[in-house]
Amino acid sequence: MKVHLSYPPQPDDLAYLESLLEERISLTVGEIDQADPGTTILIAGRPSREELAALPELETLIVPWIGIPPGTLDLAREFPLLSLHNLHHNAAPTAEMAVALLLAAAKQIIPHDRALREGDWTLRYQKPAKTIFLAGKRALIVGYGEIGQRVGAALEGLGVEVSFIRRSMGDQDIPGVYPVSKLDSRLPEADFLVLALPLTAETEGLIREAQLRALPSSAVLVNVSRGAIIEESALYQALSEKWIFGAGLDVWFNYPGRESERSSTPPGEYDWGSLDNLVLSPHRGGHVRETERLRISALAALLNQAARGEPLDNPVDLDLGY
Amino acid sequence: MKVHLSYPPQPDDLAYLESLLEERISLTVGEIDQADPGTTILIAGRPSREELAALPELETLIVPWIGIPPGTLDLAREFPLLSLHNLHHNAAPTAEMAVALLLAAAKQIIPHDRALREGDWTLRYQKPAKTIFLAGKRALIVGYGEIGQRVGAALEGLGVEVSFIRRSMGDQDIPGVYPVSKLDSRLPEADFLVLALPLTAETEGLIREAQLRALPSSAVLVNVSRGAIIEESALYQALSEKWIFGAGLDVWFNYPGRESERSSTPPGEYDWGSLDNLVLSPHRGGHVRETERLRISALAALLNQAARGEPLDNPVDLDLGY
Repeated sequence: MKVHLSYPPQPDDLAYLESLLEERISLTVGEIDQADPGTTILIAGRPSREELAALPELETLIVPWIGIPPGTLDLAREFPLLSLHNLHHNAAPTAEMAVALLLAAAKQIIPHDRALREGDWTLRYQKPAKTIFLAGKRALIVGYGEIGQRVGAALEGLGVEVSFIRRSMGDQDIPGVYPVSKLDSRLPEADFLVLALPLTAETEGLIREAQLRALPSSAVLVNVSRGAIIEESALYQALSEKWIFGAGLDVWFNYPGRESERSSTPPGEYDWGSLDNLVLSPHRGGHVRETERLRISALAALLNQAARGEPLDNPVDLDLGY
Repeated sequence: MKVHLSYPPQPDDLAYLESLLEERISLTVGEIDQADPGTTILIAGRPSREELAALPELETLIVPWIGIPPGTLDLAREFPLLSLHNLHHNAAPTAEMAVALLLAAAKQIIPHDRALREGDWTLRYQKPAKTIFLAGKRALIVGYGEIGQRVGAALEGLGVEVSFIRRSMGDQDIPGVYPVSKLDSRLPEADFLVLALPLTAETEGLIREAQLRALPSSAVLVNVSRGAIIEESALYQALSEKWIFGAGLDVWFNYPGRESERSSTPPGEYDWGSLDNLVLSPHRGGHVRETERLRISALAALLNQAARGEPLDNPVDLDLGY
């Protein structure tokens, strides 16, 4: 079984991957145009139409992370026999980032750190104190996937009462899990709103002015999914005019394109860097020391399923986009 | 029963306190020298010897927070008939601060936020990523009081394996709870070391160079108890020379004395503000919007116990100091 990996792992990570694979798997690594024409599984995030067309035996495309790039999704629709899969290996670190951002925003970690670095203790003596107590409060988590459920478990450990919004309700009623139609009515009771859902045509701009105005003025918003779930102008207004207490964002409205732009690309159209009630994080929720090992374990599990002739986990629904 | 409160609460907080008190309690508020000579309960953190001596009927001194000031402890020993109590109302917010600081240090929230405010995304592309994954790691919490146990519950919600160091082991063995004699031997396995214990003659300088060098190089240290538990010079060296990954500190080595010093008092002798692997917080773990209400509920509970002739909760052991 011929598998081609289009991104070059570190040598020890590659050795680790090879150590996990079943013997019948023949793995090649390099640019996609170097793949063996007999390749049946391609691991690549953003292949081109030409690259896919040049691999006539290709059965499976694995995007080696969770959020499918829109171009890749469109392309997969053009190759209906191709089965598209993704990896969920960074769900746990992303959930941790959501909790870290929520706590950092609720406890105003950034302005307190900045002041004390300058020897300024005055925030300590604010009366009444302004920061948010979590225990006994209510979190609404939008998204009932692996990230959302992990965030929920962590918040419950902090004494927070957790409920969820879920797109597909399935047959059984789960207590505390509500359909998307209930989102707006639940916002006034959401002390914490955590976005952990895929970006799709349905979810783009899900959180707009009306939703942000419906939150309590002491609410904290966290987004670890995709920037476009929230309408940028409404969020900037909500934070700068204090409709809500604060926010922690790991995902943004604007990203660096070329490598040369990485050191000077504002994360959106507004002056996000000026907001004291915002915690900024450069879309790296899933990036931890262990990420490559987690990714490789998850990848090996899929490849070994294929080698054993089993159906592969994490199929991406081309209509839903995740 | 005459009770005197030596600090002036906000008017609505005072009204709330009065609404909670049993009828036989007569409450006065103001400087201690204005207290009725028949006062039997004084609520004050730092009374003077003269002030205590001027209240011949005084039976109970309640310090309205958790850590007893050393001078107050000394004074209480001079008045052996006086029963000393404290309040644990801020254990829950302090535990939340410990978790917030641990996550902020592990995820390097401060340098990532600072960079992205300037449009700098380069930290996102570090390979391998440097930040710490919590799930599956091990936390050692020093202190098995209300704060420590709450931190433990929160970390378990994040998939962290938790164990504790406890001074008084009592009769029964609790799994995962170890005596102080085991501290040093458990440090090499402590991915996260959380200090949540009282400062006493025994615990001052408990964490010195040997303890910091025994931690893994990927360890994160959090202190929400008192600065002097850690030897300042050793911790500065540990962080600046990267013996450990990072730290989050809510308690310090130097504090502002007078009000005029609050805006320009360095938190210790070293250049703490220069460290990128440190999260600085100005000793405000217990301060949240809800603090005064929590304090008043806890205070009312003690006063009502006294009014009913019951023994008061939270007696401070003058030998242990907590």
